[in-house]
Amino acid sequence: MNVFYLPEAQIGFVTLSEEESKHCVRVLRMQIGDNVCITNGTGLLMDAELVDAHPKHCILNITSQRKGNDFWSFHLHIAIAPTKNIERIEWFLEKCTEMGIDEFSIFTSQHSERRIVKPERLEKIIVSAVKQSIKSRLPTLNPSIQFNDLAKQDFHGRKYIAWINETITETLVNDYKPGENAMILIGPEGDFSRDEVELAIKFGFKPISLGSSRLRTETAGIVACQTIQLLNQLK
Amino acid sequence: MNVFYLPEAQIGFVTLSEEESKHCVRVLRMQIGDNVCITNGTGLLMDAELVDAHPKHCILNITSQRKGNDFWSFHLHIAIAPTKNIERIEWFLEKCTEMGIDEFSIFTSQHSERRIVKPERLEKIIVSAVKQSIKSRLPTLNPSIQFNDLAKQDFHGRKYIAWINETITETLVNDYKPGENAMILIGPEGDFSRDEVELAIKFGFKPISLGSSRLRTETAGIVACQTIQLLNQLK
Repeated sequence: MNVFYLPEAQIGFVTLSEEESKHCVRVLRMQIGDNVCITNGTGLLMDAELVDAHPKHCILNITSQRKGNDFWSFHLHIAIAPTKNIERIEWFLEKCTEMGIDEFSIFTSQHSERRIVKPERLEKIIVSAVKQSIKSRLPTLNPSIQFNDLAKQDFHGRKYIAWINETITETLVNDYKPGENAMILIGPEGDFSRDEVELAIKFGFKPISLGSSRLRTETAGIVACQTIQLLNQLK
Repeated sequence: MNVFYLPEAQIGFVTLSEEESKHCVRVLRMQIGDNVCITNGTGLLMDAELVDAHPKHCILNITSQRKGNDFWSFHLHIAIAPTKNIERIEWFLEKCTEMGIDEFSIFTSQHSERRIVKPERLEKIIVSAVKQSIKSRLPTLNPSIQFNDLAKQDFHGRKYIAWINETITETLVNDYKPGENAMILIGPEGDFSRDEVELAIKFGFKPISLGSSRLRTETAGIVACQTIQLLNQLK
């Protein structure tokens, strides 16, 4: 089933964006009468039929809608430092979106080698993963932020900082309890600076380990996301 | 700390391979007297000093050795169908090696779009991830195999097939018990054929779900690996 993203979708006739229309007609070579699925990114999946296969403004007839099954009882926010090779962050965004996440932040910190990210490209990666994994909800990608500002933000739930330090014996898998909201900070290739860790602790973040393996930044992000999802699936 | 892979490493003077020597001298620009770490891939990490920075055959003096901390009480074997875009399998190999795994198999199945993989390149990815995550043990990459032959292989432990089917209600996270050996089959983009699932069941594989998300092949592999590692870390 081909899935399209259309935030303003509702029952009746709708027009796809130019980009989605091109994908529909030129890439997927869909034809009038073909059935498609639409996600509105805010919790609904819809069934529709292609009624005009125009390469710039496809028209669909949405006949039914249902709530997606990607709802969970907690809020998961992962904040990560950009990797030198941005492709690694793109994979992180794709994998976490597939696994299930609510909110992403990208922050620059003292040891970040990369300072600039292009949100448009990252947003596209997330939308693509939402469609591929038939999610009804689009995770939020917050505007880039300085670490110090991020650490001071309000968050109602458990706040963790994944710190690579031998003195840290508590692990995310053994500290987090199912149902809790969680915000997890993942550092850059050169790890957080000691100042950053101290600031985070001051604002209520708990230093935790993600296990005994030395993980790359993007792997740590994926492991954190999957840890929270798995613990919430355990019976 | 820079890590090199040298299967025959032992206390005393050793020579790096031409490729590792080039990396050491030309890329990392290491000099005589610099300290390095060596993994022998079979459980030992060693401390060494560079004594001859020759770009084709570096000589190291290994002064001490210790057992790595990447030992666990179970054996984890993940068998996966190659993705159309082989880069996705490369990421799977890298991430699972970082997270911790013992054995990989790549199999061709009825719905595999790709039939040929180059083991040399995949082996390099695994070695690179072993070095990057300072693992002392190199996961085994078995020669490519047909699905039917793989399903018939002996395995002492739990055997699972991750099957995307609404009738499957049991999940890996709730079926697997810590300490058990596990072999997990992950299908291609077009999923396993029904014949393949039936053959696997006949040979003792249990169909399980990896959760309610529709995951890409390589994501399913990463989730399976992390599920087993996490359950074994739970106290």
